[in-house]
Amino acid sequence: MRIGVLTGGGDCPGLNAVIRAVVRKGVHQYGHSFVGFRDGWRGPLENKTQTLGVPEVRGILPRGGTILGSSRTNPVKVDGGIERIRKNLADLGIDALIAIGGEDTLGVATRLHEDGIAVVGVPKTIDNDLGATDYTFGFDTAVNIAVEAIDRLHTTAESHHRALVVEVMGRHAGWIALHAGMAGGANLILIPEVPFDIGRVCTLIESRFQSHYAPIVVVSEGAVPKEGTMELVSGEKDDFGHVRLGGIGDRVAKEIETRTGAESRAVVLGHVQRGGTPTAFDRWLATRFGLHAIDAIHDKDFGKMVALRGTDIVRVPLDAATRELKLVDPSLYSEAEVFFG
Amino acid sequence: MRIGVLTGGGDCPGLNAVIRAVVRKGVHQYGHSFVGFRDGWRGPLENKTQTLGVPEVRGILPRGGTILGSSRTNPVKVDGGIERIRKNLADLGIDALIAIGGEDTLGVATRLHEDGIAVVGVPKTIDNDLGATDYTFGFDTAVNIAVEAIDRLHTTAESHHRALVVEVMGRHAGWIALHAGMAGGANLILIPEVPFDIGRVCTLIESRFQSHYAPIVVVSEGAVPKEGTMELVSGEKDDFGHVRLGGIGDRVAKEIETRTGAESRAVVLGHVQRGGTPTAFDRWLATRFGLHAIDAIHDKDFGKMVALRGTDIVRVPLDAATRELKLVDPSLYSEAEVFFG
Amino acid sequence: MRIGVLTGGGDCPGLNAVIRAVVRKGVHQYGHSFVGFRDGWRGPLENKTQTLGVPEVRGILPRGGTILGSSRTNPVKVDGGIERIRKNLADLGIDALIAIGGEDTLGVATRLHEDGIAVVGVPKTIDNDLGATDYTFGFDTAVNIAVEAIDRLHTTAESHHRALVVEVMGRHAGWIALHAGMAGGANLILIPEVPFDIGRVCTLIESRFQSHYAPIVVVSEGAVPKEGTMELVSGEKDDFGHVRLGGIGDRVAKEIETRTGAESRAVVLGHVQRGGTPTAFDRWLATRFGLHAIDAIHDKDFGKMVALRGTDIVRVPLDAATRELKLVDPSLYSEAEVFFG
Amino acid sequence: MRIGVLTGGGDCPGLNAVIRAVVRKGVHQYGHSFVGFRDGWRGPLENKTQTLGVPEVRGILPRGGTILGSSRTNPVKVDGGIERIRKNLADLGIDALIAIGGEDTLGVATRLHEDGIAVVGVPKTIDNDLGATDYTFGFDTAVNIAVEAIDRLHTTAESHHRALVVEVMGRHAGWIALHAGMAGGANLILIPEVPFDIGRVCTLIESRFQSHYAPIVVVSEGAVPKEGTMELVSGEKDDFGHVRLGGIGDRVAKEIETRTGAESRAVVLGHVQRGGTPTAFDRWLATRFGLHAIDAIHDKDFGKMVALRGTDIVRVPLDAATRELKLVDPSLYSEAEVFFG
Repeated sequence: MRIGVLTGGGDCPGLNAVIRAVVRKGVHQYGHSFVGFRDGWRGPLENKTQTLGVPEVRGILPRGGTILGSSRTNPVKVDGGIERIRKNLADLGIDALIAIGGEDTLGVATRLHEDGIAVVGVPKTIDNDLGATDYTFGFDTAVNIAVEAIDRLHTTAESHHRALVVEVMGRHAGWIALHAGMAGGANLILIPEVPFDIGRVCTLIESRFQSHYAPIVVVSEGAVPKEGTMELVSGEKDDFGHVRLGGIGDRVAKEIETRTGAESRAVVLGHVQRGGTPTAFDRWLATRFGLHAIDAIHDKDFGKMVALRGTDIVRVPLDAATRELKLVDPSLYSEAEVFFG
Repeated sequence: MRIGVLTGGGDCPGLNAVIRAVVRKGVHQYGHSFVGFRDGWRGPLENKTQTLGVPEVRGILPRGGTILGSSRTNPVKVDGGIERIRKNLADLGIDALIAIGGEDTLGVATRLHEDGIAVVGVPKTIDNDLGATDYTFGFDTAVNIAVEAIDRLHTTAESHHRALVVEVMGRHAGWIALHAGMAGGANLILIPEVPFDIGRVCTLIESRFQSHYAPIVVVSEGAVPKEGTMELVSGEKDDFGHVRLGGIGDRVAKEIETRTGAESRAVVLGHVQRGGTPTAFDRWLATRFGLHAIDAIHDKDFGKMVALRGTDIVRVPLDAATRELKLVDPSLYSEAEVFFG
Repeated sequence: MRIGVLTGGGDCPGLNAVIRAVVRKGVHQYGHSFVGFRDGWRGPLENKTQTLGVPEVRGILPRGGTILGSSRTNPVKVDGGIERIRKNLADLGIDALIAIGGEDTLGVATRLHEDGIAVVGVPKTIDNDLGATDYTFGFDTAVNIAVEAIDRLHTTAESHHRALVVEVMGRHAGWIALHAGMAGGANLILIPEVPFDIGRVCTLIESRFQSHYAPIVVVSEGAVPKEGTMELVSGEKDDFGHVRLGGIGDRVAKEIETRTGAESRAVVLGHVQRGGTPTAFDRWLATRFGLHAIDAIHDKDFGKMVALRGTDIVRVPLDAATRELKLVDPSLYSEAEVFFG
Repeated sequence: MRIGVLTGGGDCPGLNAVIRAVVRKGVHQYGHSFVGFRDGWRGPLENKTQTLGVPEVRGILPRGGTILGSSRTNPVKVDGGIERIRKNLADLGIDALIAIGGEDTLGVATRLHEDGIAVVGVPKTIDNDLGATDYTFGFDTAVNIAVEAIDRLHTTAESHHRALVVEVMGRHAGWIALHAGMAGGANLILIPEVPFDIGRVCTLIESRFQSHYAPIVVVSEGAVPKEGTMELVSGEKDDFGHVRLGGIGDRVAKEIETRTGAESRAVVLGHVQRGGTPTAFDRWLATRFGLHAIDAIHDKDFGKMVALRGTDIVRVPLDAATRELKLVDPSLYSEAEVFFG
């Protein structure tokens, strides 16, 4: 078979490990050949390809990013986009497609599958908010980077009387904040799933200052204050009806200073969380996702996505990942609350 | 309630995270008090205790090792050992015990439970070879340390014509070798579950030298050659009937030199793999194990052990972990074989 | 002798290593005793002390921050401050003082020395901008943290078409930006010593986008645009007559987006750069500074500060460090320019 | 000009950073062109070359190893070797050579220079034992790797009653052991420059066990016992007249067990110390060495080697580095002794 591979959406440590596993097993075990598509769906849409064989995937396992490039191009929103992809795949003699990406990328893959194109998906999200899989690669790396930052901030918090706010990724789900905050020994964790009361945040911070050294607050970039508790920069609302703030970390730090009189500083890790070499867990998971994705292709089991269940890689329908966001369960959040303060 | 806590067996990153979670939730949420036992089962056997409260667990989350100390003392093998423990617990007014440890430690805990002592277990093994739980804390840290070493060795392998052998932990099970080898891009992985043929190892190494840069071989400390394929240092056999070698990494490196004529070097990571700060995953898992262990105590659900199933922490019978070793499944090992060579 | 020790100003990896070395050598080799002062000059000013002996310094070598706490209290600006310190030192029976700190802290130490108080200084600045010493501890740690972040950003830059701006510490001197930018392979480095022309920055960025993957720009927090080249948020000027901007990293990123049309993101590492465990170099330097500071005290060579010259620790007059800022030499900056673009 | 570049001897983090700086500045600033020689002196000897231009050095700054390969081939010991090199250089139209390497490599360069070949040297040694330069790149990386290992071992030492021996690189000089031991808080450091008395080692270890947790001993691979104090494996002597042992780390650990009865374990870091990404310091130093080496070439200042003096890069005669080994000064070693025990 001749198989196309593409990576879509934001970059994520582990993408290259998936690509490598797909190609190595596809070539060595099954004798397939590959075509790399450049920059996500823009590749098959605009016929941008690159050579993809065993030599091209040599040495890429430990490297972050994606050798195929990525973009947020959505062919569903392009007039005749699906038809152009179908034609380009046919012209290139491609029998099947492996699409590695998140909600948007897999959404397009689902649509292509419904239109009769042979496609298998590999789920990707740093935020860990895709359903149907226990974890996605990239998440463990992001959490470890955030924890390392929190570890460093503890020594400053011990030496100065200064509240420290760490803003981590997580637009709709608080997984990174929850895991990093709990593993980093944060004194408070604010996540999108549980709107916060800034007054209670400040009460907790003041009581912390009285008993111990300065507090560390971990905030998801998508965390939101309860309506009416904190003046907002703008009234704009996101898809979830949450009011969007520019830089919630900075906003919370400023509010703490104003309300408690204590100095406060924000650290915004941003893109640092999604770059660089993947952790062992993410390389392992990404590699296994790749191996099982090429198996699914080989089995002609199209319209499926690989997923992690416990320690097993399973196949689920392509749309299972995108049917609904995987949010932090309230009971899990309340496990963390025993460490607040 | 008044609760005793002990850690037994080899140290393991995450032990302190368990202790902290147990104490924080036990004190803050349930109002329990704690007694720390020193050096594993030697503590309750010889009445060696230490203060264990919220102040004692402050700041220990990121620290490897165990603030309670550890040992391999087995009270079952001591005359009247069980009775002395029962008496000491009674004298100290202890209502229940949390035992954090591996096969031996949990074996003693099972025995105490059968004798009517209230005990809850927390599974611990760097090697990840305990049954009934998907993973144990410490394993992810060990794998990451091994992968970082393998990453470093790749640059040497690229620059010199020298086969590199990395010996990692894993006496009876090859989990660390398998995960680290796959995540590190090793060219060969040797594990205890699959006795190796040194002749075939050398054939693979020679063909690798011809096509690319020097090979990296990851070997579990418990890996064994097929009988008759490699001269052994001694005829001693271990519990599994495998012939034991002192330093399989060094032996394999030497054999490669002799048979292929290529230079070969061994790296033996040893204790470095079990020390230092735990990864985010291990802190998360250890913390949740601690939270759920104190819940089990509070529910008077004794004779149980906490375990990871997917993303859930569950309770299983204490002896579930020790009934049989969790070995690497042949199908999982064969997934890795596509990368050999 | 009975010796007081204090740490002033911002925290910095290596402070604890200095304290440990001072106490270990002071007690074991010279038989001195110590008093720890809390929170910088506030300690001797308000008589806030803590026990400081060999047990207190055990295990602190690898820990960031300072076990003595710190503050920016300046007794020179407090009415009768110097006299209160003199009286408190006399009441505590203190023969000499070791002051570990930066410009402000050492400035006070110089003043005390002129007033006849026996004091020895240890220079401290993350920014590496103190004169009279080749390097100060903490700097190497900060640079390594910044380089690790830049390394991670490269993989994102390779995968997306997005200019990345990294703001690092350095209010008056560009040492961290220069070292981290050069070691991290940045495409442009902006430092306070060389006001930048935002138009030329954008020209370089556009040409970079045309030839390769996305550019990474490293900016000192104190970098300033040439007057008239970039609209400023406020007209406020700092001590150096430079116009202060809130968040130069964010400002530069925004300006790049506006002028070039390319997406741009800023990463602001902030306090993460000054926390956590020191690098080997910083531990070595800090330890040697401590050993030589206690030697100077023992030799009654007061009014001096320890300093690094090549591989030697030497003693220089206390005011040598603060006489003028050590700025980046233009010739050194122009060495880096060969890598721009 | 047309310039040849080669790397000789053991690989060392920073080699690629030198090559990149040489080529980037040579091409962009001076308009020179380059030829890469493969595998050290074997390259010009056997006419093994590779393309070396700006595209080839892209992205290699953070990578360990050397893109040119390396070997220990010594053309001085090959019949007519020097003449063959002269002829090959002439045939390739090469005007000058940059040789990056240690004692052996620079020794050959000195010889070539005496024979009228235009050559400039860049000193390289992980062990930091070359004269005429304060530091060489690679050393800081090796020390940091060793310190990270020692940090990890501390937590095991705190939890178990087990002496830990760490063998680090350093055949003739104890720089890595001294820096890593001091930065890692070792309880004893054994270096080649100061033959040790195993009896006194064991006395110190026993007294340590009595007062605190288990000791950590750092040993250079070239450390030697005082004659008569420790039974030796063989009577073989090295170039320095020291008796050579196979694996001094293992030997010391064994001797401690035998003499004190305490369990003891050795960790042998081996090649892990010389691989992987260089630290910021090593990238900075290697990059500056490269920039100044190409300047020397451009200035036709042949027969020189670049060297670090304080914060300056200077030029010294090629043979200055190899005239004598730079050993650890006894006064520096005695600074460390205050921490022993």
